[in-house]
This record gives sequence, C-alpha cells and structure tokens, in this order.
Amino acid sequence: MSDQKTRTELHELGEFKLIDVLTQDIKLTNSSTVKGVGDDAAVIDPLGKQVVVTTDYLLEGIHFDLIYHPLKHLGYKAIMVNLSDVYAMNARPTQVTTSIGVSKRFCVEDLQELYAGMLLACELHGVDLVGGDTTSSLTGLTLSVTAIGLANKDLITYRSGAKVNDLICVTGDLGSAYMGLQLLEREKKVFSGNPELQPKLEGYDYILERFLKPEARKQLIDLLEAAAIVPTSMIDISDGLSSEMLHICKSSGVGCRIYLENIPIDQVTHKMAAELNIDPLVAALNGGEDYELLFTVPIDKHDIIAAMDGAKIIGHITESSTGAMLVPPQGEEVALIAQGWNIL
Amino acid sequence: MSDQKTRTELHELGEFKLIDVLTQDIKLTNSSTVKGVGDDAAVIDPLGKQVVVTTDYLLEGIHFDLIYHPLKHLGYKAIMVNLSDVYAMNARPTQVTTSIGVSKRFCVEDLQELYAGMLLACELHGVDLVGGDTTSSLTGLTLSVTAIGLANKDLITYRSGAKVNDLICVTGDLGSAYMGLQLLEREKKVFSGNPELQPKLEGYDYILERFLKPEARKQLIDLLEAAAIVPTSMIDISDGLSSEMLHICKSSGVGCRIYLENIPIDQVTHKMAAELNIDPLVAALNGGEDYELLFTVPIDKHDIIAAMDGAKIIGHITESSTGAMLVPPQGEEVALIAQGWNIL
Repeated sequence: MSDQKTRTELHELGEFKLIDVLTQDIKLTNSSTVKGVGDDAAVIDPLGKQVVVTTDYLLEGIHFDLIYHPLKHLGYKAIMVNLSDVYAMNARPTQVTTSIGVSKRFCVEDLQELYAGMLLACELHGVDLVGGDTTSSLTGLTLSVTAIGLANKDLITYRSGAKVNDLICVTGDLGSAYMGLQLLEREKKVFSGNPELQPKLEGYDYILERFLKPEARKQLIDLLEAAAIVPTSMIDISDGLSSEMLHICKSSGVGCRIYLENIPIDQVTHKMAAELNIDPLVAALNGGEDYELLFTVPIDKHDIIAAMDGAKIIGHITESSTGAMLVPPQGEEVALIAQGWNIL
Repeated sequence: MSDQKTRTELHELGEFKLIDVLTQDIKLTNSSTVKGVGDDAAVIDPLGKQVVVTTDYLLEGIHFDLIYHPLKHLGYKAIMVNLSDVYAMNARPTQVTTSIGVSKRFCVEDLQELYAGMLLACELHGVDLVGGDTTSSLTGLTLSVTAIGLANKDLITYRSGAKVNDLICVTGDLGSAYMGLQLLEREKKVFSGNPELQPKLEGYDYILERFLKPEARKQLIDLLEAAAIVPTSMIDISDGLSSEMLHICKSSGVGCRIYLENIPIDQVTHKMAAELNIDPLVAALNGGEDYELLFTVPIDKHDIIAAMDGAKIIGHITESSTGAMLVPPQGEEVALIAQGWNIL
C-alpha cells in the first residue's frame, strides 16, 4: 500500500499514541462544537436548532476495493456519503464521528492517508470530526461514519412531503459513478490477466472521480436557501434513481412520471456505456452511488428551478393510483422497479 | 446458530424487507425524537439542551466470540457500552443509530435476536433506535453503535475538571467482567478438546453476566442528580481502572492516590481469580469492560457519597507533581500504569 514510503506498524505506537497521531491535525471550526475528541463523548450545542443524525457503513470487499481505491479518496468518500444524507434533509452538516477497523495489513501511514481524506472532506464542508473508535480487525478495513447536522425545524425536508403536481428535480448527472466502477472492474480484470499492461483510464477522469471521490451537493442547499425554496421532499441517490424515487412515492403516498429524455447523463458516461455495451439509462436508474439529490418542489417554482445551475426537472408527481412510471420519448410508459443492494 | 429454529436466508428478504422486519418493533418513546428510521437521517429536537455523541465499534473475533456470546446479549451489550459513555458525560441517552455488517453465515432470525437485545437495552434506558445501516460483510459480524444524549450545559461532566483534594469514587465492582471472560475462554478450550464435556459455569452467573451483558450505570446519574452533585470529572471504565484514572489525571493536570484495599471487588471475582491463579487486583486495574463509572467530587461531598448506594470512595486527587499512585495497605506506593487495547 505504501511500499516506497515509511511504514510504521500499528503496534509500534499503541492505541493512545495512534489516536494522538491521527487526531493531531483536527481543527474545530463549528461554533456548535463544544467538545471534540478526547472525552467519553463529543458535546454539541445546537443553539435552538433541530439535530439530524445519519450513519453509513463501508466494508472492504463489499463497498470498496483497495486495488483501485486510494485510501485518501476512500476516507473522503466515507465522509461525503454521510454529508450527502444530511443535505438530503435540507440540513447543514456540522460534526462527524468515525469508527475504523484495521487489520495489520495496514500501517500508521495508511491510516494517516485515510484520515487526510476524511479531514479534507470535513474541511470543504465546514464539518468537525469530533470522535470515533479505532480498533483492530481480523480481516480488512471497515469504516462506519455518523454525521450530525443542524437545521431550523421548518426547513427540514423529509421523503414524505411530495404532493400531486409537484415537480421532480435532480442535481448533476446520473449513472457516471456506476460507469466509473465498471471501467475500474474491467481494468482490474485485464491487469490480473497480465500485470504488465497499464490500465487504460485516459479520458475517463470524470467518471472515475465520480465513483472514487464523490461530492455531496451542498451547492443545491445554498441555492434553495437563497431562493427561499423549501423542497416538499428530498432524498440522496445512493441506490439509483428508481429506488430513491420509489422511496419518495411510498413515503409521500403518491405516484410519479419521470421523462426518460430528461434524465441527465454526462457525455463521458454515454461514451463508456457504448464501449461496454451497457444502456446508460440502466446505469442512471439502477447504478447508484451518484450522491446527487432528488427532490420535489411545488409547480409554481418551475421557473426558478429551470434557471438553477446544476439542477434539472425530470418529471412530476401524480396520484398514487397511476403508479410510478417512466415515460419514454415514444411508446408505452413502463413501471419503475426498485433495486436495493444485493444481500449475498 | 439457530439450527433448531426457523432459518430465513437474508437473500430471501432483500434489503428493504429486511429493514422492515428488523425495525417493525421499534417504538419511539423520547419526546426529543422527531423522526426515527425511514429517512436519510433521524431528526432530534434537543429543546435547548446540549447534545453528546459517542461511537463504539464491536468486531467479531476482536471484541466478541459468538461461540459463547449469545446474539441477544451481544446486541444488548453493543447498546449498553455506548449508553455508558453518555452517562459518563453526566448526560441522559436519548437516541442510538446502529451499523451492522453480516455475512451469509447469519440468517434473518439471527439478526432479529441481535435486534431484540438492542431494543431491550434501549427500552430499559428510555432510548430510541432512530437509524442505521445494515449491510453484507465478507467475514463475520461487525457492529458500530452511535449514541446520542442530552444534558443541560452546566451538568455536562468532562474528564478535565478534577481538582486537588477531590474524592475519587467508583460505582459497582471491578474486574468481574474480565474474570467472566477468562472463565469462558477456559471452558471454550476444554470444550474444543472434548466436545462431549459440558462447560462448568455453575455458581459463576454473576461474572458471566458482567461480561456478556453489562449494565450502564444510569442509577448513579439519578442519585447524583437527586443529591444535586455535579462531579468534577467522570469517565466510564472500559479499559480498566488504571487506564481510565490516568486519562482523568492527564486531562485534569493532576495526580492521584488510589487505596488498593478500597477497590471494590466482588466475592465471585475473588473466587474465580483464586481458581485461575490470577491476582484479582490485576483484573480490577487492567482487565477492562467493567462499564462502571469513575468520577471525582469535591471533598465536602464525602458524607453523601459514602452513604450512596452503589458508589465507593477509593482515593483522592493530588498535585500532578506527586504522580498517579497506588497505595497498598502496607509497603511502598507504586505508580499506576496504563494499558490500552493491544493493537494486533
């Protein structure tokens, strides 16, 4: 992992020294953080706001492959996927805690790389790392992150508030992280067949970065706030558009119509999909790991959203009796189908 | 694990159904819980109080051995060790989130057992389970729990407030969980040598329960509140008395004198220690997993603490220049030595 660099074994430091080394660069920037690492628990003063809490779990071999996932990117991603959940509540992330399990395959410098990525993600979003638990693991690397955010009560956005005729909107583009993963998996197979071949990754930086180092969509929350729009519902896209849209429909007791031609797909995603003979719409609908925000707003906000940088209207909410439907440019509507993670 | 019972494979349910099954018995009891499971994040209204947050991580093969740790007890323990951290801040736990990684060795009924234990612990402490992440694991069972608690700002107790002449106090008794673990390890070895032998556990229920199913010391927080005492420092004992006492000394910039004869040790711990030829004081000082509370109070509270059920005075705080010392009934004082977990 860091063959050419210094390698300090974990047992050379011991628990308390290791924690000192890993946490020495943590700076607290949030006024709501009263106490960070170094006690039984962190202390947060929410100053009259409500608190949102979310947890995500990343396990080696399931959620990431260190053959192509640099540790710094992995740390960054572990934080980002949690911040994404906080933004999906229309809240602002303020603190995170982390649980890290490591086997002796990893050295102190590896953990410092991981931490550097976590702290970079925190810094970009003004979030404090306030606690955690670092422990040994028999079998690899595991990361559990809990993110905490704050919001005024009347701004918090659930999955359950979508109303008939609301516009369905999404940030960024979809399917690119999935295509990035497919590319990495292809090159991994080629490499394991012939280790002397160099991976062919040129020109695909965008989809690789989307998978390896996703960004949480803080910008949308800023733009909505500036426009004084509170979405009627919102969710982040971790499992794919289909699955998330169905969550909103189920929670809100509504149906939807999504127009296939409106689903935003990047040109690099199209190019990779053609090369790998995958329908890019399948990647967008079921690929997952986009960490874009899917949200609904009242129809009278149409012009504001249409002019908003980085957001796109892809459909509208209907009565639940008409179901959750995909509308192709020509031909018959088809029903949306959910896909969760594949349990073993 | 549940050979004689129904066994539903995880893939028979799929992610969303599994979450439904596991979370269907969750009842929200805390007025501060605005939204529990079922959205991107939980929502908490702290009603003007400060929020404390703590995370603990339990990995199979490192922190527990399912050969002798029933899943229901394990779920109970995973929650309790986190509640213990919240009480150690002199706060009240209100919510938990859980991350669970499971391999296909486990079935739905196993996870239901685990959840039943978690929910029982939550119920006993008036805590709501408000979120989490359940995912597949390649290698076994991993559990990360984050607990959230609330307290008025002026009641929160850090490790850093101990003052010279303060009394050092501890709840319950120490070393019993460690002796319970030693007994289980002994019987596991005997059993692996001859599977027809029945384990000899009679008469040792107390120390077994202390290890397998520890209790967080809510009662102390209640008694301190009733007596209008705010400790000057507090910590929970997870790594052993020595290590925790040194944390308080370091954070508070003080020394201490702990009187060996005052360290509370249960008679069953003594009995087991004699049988296994272990010094029970070593178990109390370095064994860990007691989840008792170690705290300091001003000396004028002596009579109240001395009369308090379940708490004992074991020493006093000194100037830092005199060090952290153990005082035996006869002979020379010896310096306290810390032991963290053994990293690999």
